[in-house]
Amino acid sequence: MNAVERIDKLLNPRSIAIVGASQAPNKLAGQLIPALREGGYQGVIYPVNPRYQEVAGLACYASVAQIPGEVDHCVIVVGKERVPQVLEECRAKRVPGASIYTSGYAEASAGGHEAQQTLEDLARGMTFIGPNCMGFSNLAARVMAAPSAVLKRAQGAGDVALVSQSGGLAYATIAYFAQRAGMGFSHIVNTGNSAGVSYGDLLEYMFQDPTTHVVLAVTEAERAACEVIDAVRRLGLRKPVVLLKLGRGQTGTRMALSHTGSLAGDYRLVRDVAEQHGIVCASDADDALGLCELLRHGFDAGHAQGIASLCISGGNITLFADQADAHGLRFAELAPATEARLAEVLPDYISVHNPIDITALGYENPGLHADVLNVLLTDPAVRTVVPILTTLDDYTEVCGILAGVRERTGCGMAVLWSGGSYETQSREILREAGIPVFHSATLLAGCLDRLRRAAGRRPAGDAPAAGKPGDATQAMSEGAALQWLGQRGVAVPAMRACSRDGLAIAARELGYPLVIKADSTETHISDQDNVILNIRNDEELAQALARVAQWQSDQVLALRYLPGHELVAGTFAHPQLGLVLMVGSGGQWVELLKDVRFVALPASADELTDALASTLVGRALREGYRGASGFEQAVQLLGALADAALQAAPSVAQIELNPVTVGKHGAAAVDAAIYLQA
Amino acid sequence: MNAVERIDKLLNPRSIAIVGASQAPNKLAGQLIPALREGGYQGVIYPVNPRYQEVAGLACYASVAQIPGEVDHCVIVVGKERVPQVLEECRAKRVPGASIYTSGYAEASAGGHEAQQTLEDLARGMTFIGPNCMGFSNLAARVMAAPSAVLKRAQGAGDVALVSQSGGLAYATIAYFAQRAGMGFSHIVNTGNSAGVSYGDLLEYMFQDPTTHVVLAVTEAERAACEVIDAVRRLGLRKPVVLLKLGRGQTGTRMALSHTGSLAGDYRLVRDVAEQHGIVCASDADDALGLCELLRHGFDAGHAQGIASLCISGGNITLFADQADAHGLRFAELAPATEARLAEVLPDYISVHNPIDITALGYENPGLHADVLNVLLTDPAVRTVVPILTTLDDYTEVCGILAGVRERTGCGMAVLWSGGSYETQSREILREAGIPVFHSATLLAGCLDRLRRAAGRRPAGDAPAAGKPGDATQAMSEGAALQWLGQRGVAVPAMRACSRDGLAIAARELGYPLVIKADSTETHISDQDNVILNIRNDEELAQALARVAQWQSDQVLALRYLPGHELVAGTFAHPQLGLVLMVGSGGQWVELLKDVRFVALPASADELTDALASTLVGRALREGYRGASGFEQAVQLLGALADAALQAAPSVAQIELNPVTVGKHGAAAVDAAIYLQA
Repeated sequence: MNAVERIDKLLNPRSIAIVGASQAPNKLAGQLIPALREGGYQGVIYPVNPRYQEVAGLACYASVAQIPGEVDHCVIVVGKERVPQVLEECRAKRVPGASIYTSGYAEASAGGHEAQQTLEDLARGMTFIGPNCMGFSNLAARVMAAPSAVLKRAQGAGDVALVSQSGGLAYATIAYFAQRAGMGFSHIVNTGNSAGVSYGDLLEYMFQDPTTHVVLAVTEAERAACEVIDAVRRLGLRKPVVLLKLGRGQTGTRMALSHTGSLAGDYRLVRDVAEQHGIVCASDADDALGLCELLRHGFDAGHAQGIASLCISGGNITLFADQADAHGLRFAELAPATEARLAEVLPDYISVHNPIDITALGYENPGLHADVLNVLLTDPAVRTVVPILTTLDDYTEVCGILAGVRERTGCGMAVLWSGGSYETQSREILREAGIPVFHSATLLAGCLDRLRRAAGRRPAGDAPAAGKPGDATQAMSEGAALQWLGQRGVAVPAMRACSRDGLAIAARELGYPLVIKADSTETHISDQDNVILNIRNDEELAQALARVAQWQSDQVLALRYLPGHELVAGTFAHPQLGLVLMVGSGGQWVELLKDVRFVALPASADELTDALASTLVGRALREGYRGASGFEQAVQLLGALADAALQAAPSVAQIELNPVTVGKHGAAAVDAAIYLQA
Repeated sequence: MNAVERIDKLLNPRSIAIVGASQAPNKLAGQLIPALREGGYQGVIYPVNPRYQEVAGLACYASVAQIPGEVDHCVIVVGKERVPQVLEECRAKRVPGASIYTSGYAEASAGGHEAQQTLEDLARGMTFIGPNCMGFSNLAARVMAAPSAVLKRAQGAGDVALVSQSGGLAYATIAYFAQRAGMGFSHIVNTGNSAGVSYGDLLEYMFQDPTTHVVLAVTEAERAACEVIDAVRRLGLRKPVVLLKLGRGQTGTRMALSHTGSLAGDYRLVRDVAEQHGIVCASDADDALGLCELLRHGFDAGHAQGIASLCISGGNITLFADQADAHGLRFAELAPATEARLAEVLPDYISVHNPIDITALGYENPGLHADVLNVLLTDPAVRTVVPILTTLDDYTEVCGILAGVRERTGCGMAVLWSGGSYETQSREILREAGIPVFHSATLLAGCLDRLRRAAGRRPAGDAPAAGKPGDATQAMSEGAALQWLGQRGVAVPAMRACSRDGLAIAARELGYPLVIKADSTETHISDQDNVILNIRNDEELAQALARVAQWQSDQVLALRYLPGHELVAGTFAHPQLGLVLMVGSGGQWVELLKDVRFVALPASADELTDALASTLVGRALREGYRGASGFEQAVQLLGALADAALQAAPSVAQIELNPVTVGKHGAAAVDAAIYLQA
């Protein structure tokens, strides 16, 4: 069986054994059979517990081995010490699937990882979720194999598949808020420690599952988040995917050798690469649900541009505009013809500038909403309309108008309902018309922003670039590194590597202004005692030579001095994502400013352009801030760096250019370190 | 009558005339009398409209003049053209107060400002709100002089006074969400264009109003926000104040002459100075309400430090920790003794590190919540506990435990309820125990962060420092500016201002390394053609002199070269806030990075320390990042700059130091511009 078939079997069992079944209703184990039954499960249920003859009116078996019929799925809710025996019996009985609730494995402090490894060995061949999980719910097929206050009240299946390592977030927080917002799930799978089925396989399954339209992946381990990215890389983004990665702190000193390395442990690495692949990244349960709501209604990155908005309250318009601005969103600039047509439907005293405050006139004449929307939607700059509602006794008329416009035009429409209505029908009108509703300007602007950032689209089948992370060592001198880069098309200054004796001649050959550096494998971060910048003439050279004579290193490097705006750029191998390029604002405060972006390689010129443009230094170069220039050359340099790293992997483990200077000379790596695989 | 007495009369009218009363229920003017009546108004109501004999069962008068009795308050809901006549009659009848609903004044595009000026002249002597407003509601006294779907359902008065320029935000958005959250208002006053009573007077009134505990001020105009700050400066922060300032874009090029000036138009100026005075700044209706909820329960800036948290769901713990981290909040570091006591109440496999994941054990044994809280609250590092709840059928037991702990200890407690309960009693238990409840980790962390930033406390009576904004002109050369600063205790490099002829001697007197600059009144931003940096010896000086000979300016400046980390610092006069100091990360990208803070003067050393420490460069200096040092000297320099600016105001309009370098030499202003009042 392939992964999809195995997971299909896991989530659609014809029979389920509850190993560790309990008669106590306040225990999780006592709630499983009622949950299955109330959920409408049509298969066979076998309670297993040597202490009972009967549980919930069903014959109870002393062990898995004693179950008379075939068992498709074992829910294991026993003490940790009993798990090996249960898995042994499952293997003997050829049980294909399991949910292992038992905890005390990798999540526990002492001995947990070893225990989990043993469990993985025992469960080999089975398709399972857990340990330390709370089961799954196939809502579409009504297999509620999980105890949850929310699921008991689930009105029916929806179109979002939720895969979560955290049971609490999935079954309580997210499911509860989704229920209140009227959003349903096709599946909820709680993988706990994720020792069994991978996020990659689950994603592949949900991509082909006809009941699922959006996948929401909640991960704690970076590994699980990377499996999501990898699956999208392999399969393409077949359906919208939202990723909520928990645990944002530095994940460690994985590659703290260089600036690049110390920043690569950051959550942003995962986020940036996910967005590069079109995966939308959430930061909380609220925006995760908001993003699912937008995506299941067909919103994509394009809808985060060209926003038009209208409201009867100027204050609410301003508040949304503030939040849109804070999140880097742009309102559509209306064509003069559009503004002229708006002026026809609006009285003189109302400004036709988007966003539009239709004033209390829209309260006394609700039809004005349609008049304004119909004009706005004729403008090609308008991609998304955001009508803002406040509070009325009854909003049915306005909601009916919005639904009518949405149905007639199929436009992207999200309602910001900053208040409410004292009847319930109006909300239902919007739901039936497929219009997502938000109640917070901050949340809506935040969701549109995250959508905008996930504009990446890559063809399926792209494998991670070769790369093998591990202990890296700096075995190249800086001169050798720059030469190596120069030979591979990465712009570097004209230079000579030589002994101290040859320095005077080399320097004069190069011409001024010059930089002289000690050239050893031991230093890569500029150290004032080993670097002399901006040598402008023979006298300054003579003084420099006198200083160089005091240096420890006999090997020196003379380079043309190319000052400019400073970038940091580098490449490194990530254990799951393969080769990754980092680029951002350079200089001595790289780690403090943390103004960097990460791009998985290979990357297109557009991807590199987007990454650079989203940093502060990139924005300055692109916009020509205070005379800055060289954006295109910087992108070219990044492209050459990426190519060089790809060709040299895995023997070259890390490359760091800090800084790359960008100025009148174009872009050049003026300081480089190359780390080889140890 | 003083301001408090006048506003008291405005908000407690014994009789109200509705000028422009209507019989149409779908018009605002038709809803006013029903609103007053349903709200329980006990005074006399006079409809005024020449078209009707009777409105809502009351005799209707043709004009204000014809009303037989005394009128305390006129609600004016007539067309703009009729307003002057109504105001004339009000004056003749000595009506003391009014709410002017009519629009088309300063908010309108053409002629609005002039019309508003005329209105202000006509209404002189009256205490009024508006124009372009939707009235007020004194909920404590049941005077609902505003048409609002929310107020109709107001269950009673609360303790928050809401003063808002935006009627939509106040009566719809904020009031609606507050109602759902169980929060009530003592007053809602919608000031519209705020041509009448000032925010300062309203704040003074609410400070002495016994029914009000927290003031929420929503402003559109920067002027109104500054009135709030000014009132707190004059009166002291007598009650907690939340400020929601709408309209965040650059407010213009007020002082775009310098870096300082171009950044001073930013919303952050208002926010920083408000926070300096202990005013808490919100950014949306959600956090405005969340902040009111925390403040009315006694939370202050101190509660945003030393957080302890517990939850049965590790995922929810991690999510809150992520958000706390993103907002710069710190969890309390527990003492070893506390962790030892936690280890006694928790099983081995549960980590005693704060925040604490009590696992599903807390579900099966709710008493664990009390056990853990009781230990946590013995630790002096714990200022605030945040129990996180998820979703259960019934949370009454856990909520009863939380209420018990809160009541017994009086601790700071906010519940993050990331889910819900399927009965309503548990929520009520928390409400009665005075425990604020949040449903979003992001929102709670964001509110605690804003609370933390508003730690400022200043004595009452502090007047804004003298300062008169207006056209400024640079009339001092850089040499004169540096000298002027040096004489006033602002550290500057050793220097000589001289003609080109005297430069060689001056330079040798100063000693190397040196900087030479052209010294004119025309340039203040370093321009490479007029500056020679880092002259290290006689040869370099000779070359420099040759270059200087080519310069246009005969006046030059020689200074010791003092490289280091770069700050930008400056002072300027704000029209309402008086003299303001700005400090932040310096260098060529000042405006792009926008890493600056504003401080109203005079300011204490602590205020200057806090401002500098909250910038990137300040953090680097304070933490000694990569060998940085000189934080204390930088604060001293800011203090001297502030003193100099205060003494020289108003004739010195702006001072800009860019950069101040901070390094081994301490801190020194190496480039200065002083702008005099034109």
